[in-house]
Amino acid sequence: MSKLRFKISMSLDGFVAGPNQSVQNPLGIGGGRLHEWAFQLEVFRALLGLEGGEVNESTTVVEESLANIGARVMGRNMFGGHPGPWDAQHPWNGWWGVDPPFHHPVFVLTHHARAPLELEGGTSFTFVIDGMEAALEQARQAAGGKDVSLAGGAKAAQQYLSAGLVDEMEINLAPTLLGSGERLFAGVGDDLHGLELVRTVAAPKVTHLKFARR
Amino acid sequence: MSKLRFKISMSLDGFVAGPNQSVQNPLGIGGGRLHEWAFQLEVFRALLGLEGGEVNESTTVVEESLANIGARVMGRNMFGGHPGPWDAQHPWNGWWGVDPPFHHPVFVLTHHARAPLELEGGTSFTFVIDGMEAALEQARQAAGGKDVSLAGGAKAAQQYLSAGLVDEMEINLAPTLLGSGERLFAGVGDDLHGLELVRTVAAPKVTHLKFARR
Repeated sequence: MSKLRFKISMSLDGFVAGPNQSVQNPLGIGGGRLHEWAFQLEVFRALLGLEGGEVNESTTVVEESLANIGARVMGRNMFGGHPGPWDAQHPWNGWWGVDPPFHHPVFVLTHHARAPLELEGGTSFTFVIDGMEAALEQARQAAGGKDVSLAGGAKAAQQYLSAGLVDEMEINLAPTLLGSGERLFAGVGDDLHGLELVRTVAAPKVTHLKFARR
Repeated sequence: MSKLRFKISMSLDGFVAGPNQSVQNPLGIGGGRLHEWAFQLEVFRALLGLEGGEVNESTTVVEESLANIGARVMGRNMFGGHPGPWDAQHPWNGWWGVDPPFHHPVFVLTHHARAPLELEGGTSFTFVIDGMEAALEQARQAAGGKDVSLAGGAKAAQQYLSAGLVDEMEINLAPTLLGSGERLFAGVGDDLHGLELVRTVAAPKVTHLKFARR
């Protein structure tokens, strides 16, 4: 069975982005601190075409998160922050560039219909206007038996978590405070829908908490 | 130098108590789930005079947290939730019973003066009306060279954290959501005042995150 797998970096006080997010600063003020652990890693830098970096306890966690993913669902903000509607005057193709680092089909939750985008390196963006379950279903079809990654952002994650549709969740807990911004679990309530802590990995600047159904 | 040491159990979504706290239910709805890991432990049960329990990865963390503590500061809610003023009609001695599990002097932050309470087993409660720094100073004097424990609750912790007066902090992260209630880091901002993650201990139902100054 194809799983829906979710991973995200979160601050100790529960934020996945800082305040004042914008196209210029999509992570918000201080949000970059959530990802410092990743930018130090060789395996993560290679994804971005960067050289150098460390091998540490996080390496196998990142490698695992990349393996066996055949498609992806993401929210509109994660695609590019543009509220739509899109037209010839607004040919915004998201902030992932001409060769996004996904290399598989991506399904974007939006309220505005748009033709699919085919980019370089095997990444396509398909815009789904009939809801999160439809997006997941299309992603499962496209994944060809592999798993589907839930790429965020927070609002998309909250929808899938609240509906109990997430099969695995990896929280990369950054030992820092953001104080304000976007909370991962806002509106999710007090129910993890059967997800339990199944593995903790301690790394120098992050703690990886993996949740799954037993 | 006598340190101010703080430990608390927090949910994955950042709460240290659930909603609707009351004298009947001081942890709020669902708040007991934060402490399930502790009640399974032999070392913790022994503190409460209970038999049985496990020895696991959490045991040494709890033992460490109990060692070398000579005095304690706590907020008014942690003492007993009574807003004061106290008088002959309100002889409330807190919810810790006649033999509280502290066995050393405790300094309670309050706005209402009251004579000290001497209880059994070496625990005393002294009520401090001139602020958190005065309470810490009195606790340091009483600790006789040992460390001072910051017992919470959240509001007292926020005051000491915001002022940069906490030397060590252990977050016992419970892998559960409470959805609402009292947030540990509300109002603390984005600054841990030099506290860094120095140790992570993975236990079956909790992750212990220790912060200190390097």
